[in-house]
Amino acid sequence: MNIGIVGGGIRGRTYAQSLAGYPGAHVRAVCDLNEKVAQELADDFGLAAYVDHRVMLERTDLDAVIVATPDFAHREIAVDAARVGAHLLIEKPLATSAEDCAAIGAAVRDAGVQCMVGFENRWNPAIRRVRDLSASGVLGDVLTQNILLSNTYYVPMTMIPWAAKSSPAWFLMSHTVDAALWVADKQAVSVVARGSRGRLAELGVDTWDVIHALLTFSDGTTANLTSTWVLPDSSPSIVDFQYKAVGSKSAVDVDLQHQSVSLTGDSYSWPGLMGGEIDGRLQGPPTWMVQSFVDRINAGEPVGPGLDQGVLVSDIVLAVLRSLETGEPTPIHASPSR
Amino acid sequence: MNIGIVGGGIRGRTYAQSLAGYPGAHVRAVCDLNEKVAQELADDFGLAAYVDHRVMLERTDLDAVIVATPDFAHREIAVDAARVGAHLLIEKPLATSAEDCAAIGAAVRDAGVQCMVGFENRWNPAIRRVRDLSASGVLGDVLTQNILLSNTYYVPMTMIPWAAKSSPAWFLMSHTVDAALWVADKQAVSVVARGSRGRLAELGVDTWDVIHALLTFSDGTTANLTSTWVLPDSSPSIVDFQYKAVGSKSAVDVDLQHQSVSLTGDSYSWPGLMGGEIDGRLQGPPTWMVQSFVDRINAGEPVGPGLDQGVLVSDIVLAVLRSLETGEPTPIHASPSR
Amino acid sequence: MNIGIVGGGIRGRTYAQSLAGYPGAHVRAVCDLNEKVAQELADDFGLAAYVDHRVMLERTDLDAVIVATPDFAHREIAVDAARVGAHLLIEKPLATSAEDCAAIGAAVRDAGVQCMVGFENRWNPAIRRVRDLSASGVLGDVLTQNILLSNTYYVPMTMIPWAAKSSPAWFLMSHTVDAALWVADKQAVSVVARGSRGRLAELGVDTWDVIHALLTFSDGTTANLTSTWVLPDSSPSIVDFQYKAVGSKSAVDVDLQHQSVSLTGDSYSWPGLMGGEIDGRLQGPPTWMVQSFVDRINAGEPVGPGLDQGVLVSDIVLAVLRSLETGEPTPIHASPSR
Amino acid sequence: MNIGIVGGGIRGRTYAQSLAGYPGAHVRAVCDLNEKVAQELADDFGLAAYVDHRVMLERTDLDAVIVATPDFAHREIAVDAARVGAHLLIEKPLATSAEDCAAIGAAVRDAGVQCMVGFENRWNPAIRRVRDLSASGVLGDVLTQNILLSNTYYVPMTMIPWAAKSSPAWFLMSHTVDAALWVADKQAVSVVARGSRGRLAELGVDTWDVIHALLTFSDGTTANLTSTWVLPDSSPSIVDFQYKAVGSKSAVDVDLQHQSVSLTGDSYSWPGLMGGEIDGRLQGPPTWMVQSFVDRINAGEPVGPGLDQGVLVSDIVLAVLRSLETGEPTPIHASPSR
Repeated sequence: MNIGIVGGGIRGRTYAQSLAGYPGAHVRAVCDLNEKVAQELADDFGLAAYVDHRVMLERTDLDAVIVATPDFAHREIAVDAARVGAHLLIEKPLATSAEDCAAIGAAVRDAGVQCMVGFENRWNPAIRRVRDLSASGVLGDVLTQNILLSNTYYVPMTMIPWAAKSSPAWFLMSHTVDAALWVADKQAVSVVARGSRGRLAELGVDTWDVIHALLTFSDGTTANLTSTWVLPDSSPSIVDFQYKAVGSKSAVDVDLQHQSVSLTGDSYSWPGLMGGEIDGRLQGPPTWMVQSFVDRINAGEPVGPGLDQGVLVSDIVLAVLRSLETGEPTPIHASPSR
Repeated sequence: MNIGIVGGGIRGRTYAQSLAGYPGAHVRAVCDLNEKVAQELADDFGLAAYVDHRVMLERTDLDAVIVATPDFAHREIAVDAARVGAHLLIEKPLATSAEDCAAIGAAVRDAGVQCMVGFENRWNPAIRRVRDLSASGVLGDVLTQNILLSNTYYVPMTMIPWAAKSSPAWFLMSHTVDAALWVADKQAVSVVARGSRGRLAELGVDTWDVIHALLTFSDGTTANLTSTWVLPDSSPSIVDFQYKAVGSKSAVDVDLQHQSVSLTGDSYSWPGLMGGEIDGRLQGPPTWMVQSFVDRINAGEPVGPGLDQGVLVSDIVLAVLRSLETGEPTPIHASPSR
Repeated sequence: MNIGIVGGGIRGRTYAQSLAGYPGAHVRAVCDLNEKVAQELADDFGLAAYVDHRVMLERTDLDAVIVATPDFAHREIAVDAARVGAHLLIEKPLATSAEDCAAIGAAVRDAGVQCMVGFENRWNPAIRRVRDLSASGVLGDVLTQNILLSNTYYVPMTMIPWAAKSSPAWFLMSHTVDAALWVADKQAVSVVARGSRGRLAELGVDTWDVIHALLTFSDGTTANLTSTWVLPDSSPSIVDFQYKAVGSKSAVDVDLQHQSVSLTGDSYSWPGLMGGEIDGRLQGPPTWMVQSFVDRINAGEPVGPGLDQGVLVSDIVLAVLRSLETGEPTPIHASPSR
Repeated sequence: MNIGIVGGGIRGRTYAQSLAGYPGAHVRAVCDLNEKVAQELADDFGLAAYVDHRVMLERTDLDAVIVATPDFAHREIAVDAARVGAHLLIEKPLATSAEDCAAIGAAVRDAGVQCMVGFENRWNPAIRRVRDLSASGVLGDVLTQNILLSNTYYVPMTMIPWAAKSSPAWFLMSHTVDAALWVADKQAVSVVARGSRGRLAELGVDTWDVIHALLTFSDGTTANLTSTWVLPDSSPSIVDFQYKAVGSKSAVDVDLQHQSVSLTGDSYSWPGLMGGEIDGRLQGPPTWMVQSFVDRINAGEPVGPGLDQGVLVSDIVLAVLRSLETGEPTPIHASPSR
């Protein structure tokens, strides 16, 4: 299976490293608008480097393309790659407009390729555990969920240069919307959201500081999602991730901000444990996700989470943003799908 | 200062014990509709016992009355006590209807007595710390708060026999609404709420299982409140209380579910540390609150949180309940006050 | 009850503040070798200031003296105060040599005064809870305890200027030895200790960096104590305090390093919750301890923990230090007493 | 690489599952004294079943043998397998007597095969992180370590039928001795231990309840190890694993008892996150360890931790047991090796 990666940032590099030497996968090329970035990644893993994805698609015979570009820059690459018959692994969110989602969906269906959307928390052992507890009936009926996923200023101010074109809704809440749907296994019918902006704008990144969204399912039960990008940088972790699900039989609490290890060094920190090399091999959610993509395509099995879920999550995030603007509850039209 | 206590349940007993031997306080009488309850408490602390609060007010010369009856049963007692010139300490919430709030307010103002509403978290060292961090400027502008205060089934099913006449909104969210206002120090302008019911109703207590409320302040910032009454009884604590406040300068997280001690005994539990006797003297938030009431009245100082705050919190809880029914955002009319 | 305080540092000030306005207590004088320190404290609380405790004892008619000087500077003050008939509250440890302990003991017995040793963890709600669980039989037979009490460099390098004359054994382990005995309620028969020094010495404070002590009780059960003074200053708390007790029926774990509140500000910290003012009144273990001292003396009741316990704890700490030097197990001679 | 597994219990099954479909590994046979156990495992993974390891070795051409029998039953199998030229992965501890260690060592050296000892915490992401922090210099000089690894009664009473022939020293402390040496990277010179027995003996399993060991390194620094088998079964986890290392530059704390997820179900529990299937593939320390064994042997690289470390750890555990009996400090003779 010959693979091309578009986007040579943190995520593209993670995928390249995750597949280096992985049986059944052969990463051939990497593409980044920044030639230096593309070349460095290519050099590190023995790949061909491109700055234009169309050139890469033309010159390389690829079975699959991994789209690891910023949130808003998925459509053209995905459509072009589908047209040459490549299966797709697209970073979450699938796209940031209904039009982009529709265009990618049409291209995927027309080409008959498979499309996986990179909701990596499906491979996060803790979130997977919550899903398993729900799916196995241990939780009983899921009555409500409280999911908080936030970042320190570092993320919008430093880590992603395109933060002003994204938001805590796209960057963070797309994860938690996916997880909430996966765990509840119910149809979302509407959302109402509240939030504020101004603090990041003062600092030069004009987007939402804080977003709260209340999701209602067809049976009247709920999920409460919060994402902010304004946690102080002295936080022990750049991510705060708290997950509570209350079912009719059991409840589950997950704290993914603090993962067992506390380091009292130059400053106090909670190093993440999910990811990193163990004895020379990369492990962790994005690694296991991309390896699953490879294994399933090679085995002729369906990959997932797929296109429909990607569309649904983008639809809900769009509804959140609409509710933030109007103040009104907003219906959700797309059908759920897993 | 001669004091009468109306309501001989858990709270009435706590107040009697908190004031036993306390300088400047003389609890004289206790009143409960259940004669046996009244008599037992009276016997334990050397008080006169009554079943009718009017008889107590008639026969005892009281400087202050503590109203520790169920949520919905404050009005008549408070009005009657105010009319005989007694200062009031009324359990939170002040009352559960706008009419009751108005009646109590009128009686208090007519009589010129003082009225304190028992938002005991003002004396909770952790919540007080959050307020101090806000008031001192350490937090900076409070951008958002996430406050979860929930109980296991034990509370609605066993601890309070009148749970069907109350709800997580009155019993729990009145605490967190007060705290959110106290910490943000901003005017709340509207609320939108979502929730579900059905699980407790199946078990015979027809009230809300789960309530989420998004509060908006006049500057556009927010608070996100959750309260449920459906946590499994195997929880290490009957209360889950999580408080996060994110300011423009600092953020603070409070976990009051787990207070330092874990007991692995017949079952696993987190015994609360705030409260209980230390070397023979009761300590903790309700104790310090009632002692503050006594000290301030005796010193001729104003008590607080007062009537206006009690009215405002009840107004907001009523707006939460209205939004739960209509699905719509609901404006808040009362003015904030501390 | 007229009270004099000797030692105007952190502890002396805490006691003065704890007793300001406390019924039955009248702090009259404060004494410190540093005249400025004495005068400031005197000014803040309306006391007479002294630099020589003998002058204070001569000129003031004191019912009780609180000895809040450094570890090694208790003997002369305690003996002189006992001789004028003052009851004593002496900071832990009672003294740092067997000779000093004996001299204080003789003076106390000769004068017929009461003597309390300031093991404030007896008033710490969490440690008290462990004791209550043991004393009530909930734990069953206490099979073992692991107690770690450590400080960041701040304590030996900055907070106490006399650190080189003390050690983690005297400053910290005297607390945990007292607690281990109180909770186990058994006779300690021997101790073996290991530790290291060199790091603090490099920094100019020549004392032990790390001390581990294994205590054996007469029934063969054990306690494992660790105290260090070399935690990095970026720690969220200057104190790490972890307590585990395993009984034949139950076990209890206490984390007193993190007390519910996390502040993400200029740095990340865990503000302590035990202590500090609540609504204008100081609360917390040292406050409740000194108030208990006053109440019990005024009521003609015995105070505690008393002289015998103070002697026993100092004896055990001396045995720890001996074992550190010799490498050998060291027997404990003093009899336990509570 | 053809592999045979001896011991069809929890560990043997984990290894079989970890290698099912793993590239470069072909598990051919399993052997267990209990024929039914062997047959079930063989059926589940398509292996040949044996009850006598010599028959297995005779009839199957094996490149490697995994020894997953109880602590005390490693010698004969390891020696026989080495003699037929099979590389060895032996469960920790290597063996429970100096004679057994010597015999295995001689056989391995004579045969020129490789031998790995299954200290799986080398693949535990949290413990590996501590080692990386030490090896990279972040911790600075490791001044001391406090490592507690304990189990609930379930382990000695139910999980391992041969508990009376083992102890918390062999079953648990062999892990923490290995980790302490790996992290400190220093030569251990002596140990002194204290412990008690009686509670498990009353329940029919005559072994140590509680063991504390103080390890001294050649530079005078220390490690403090505790292991017990008497935690109440209501504990949220059958394992309590707490690791603190204090270095001259940084300190690190690891809590492996609570790994992010809390389940409030029939009882309250902390499900372990390290291990279990992620999307159909087993992950976790023992899986990564056995896969490393396969990868390294196939690549002609040395495996580790190896024989010398296995001998050293067993030597230290024997010294702990000797010190428990004599009460005296016990020197450690074996040389360290990694």
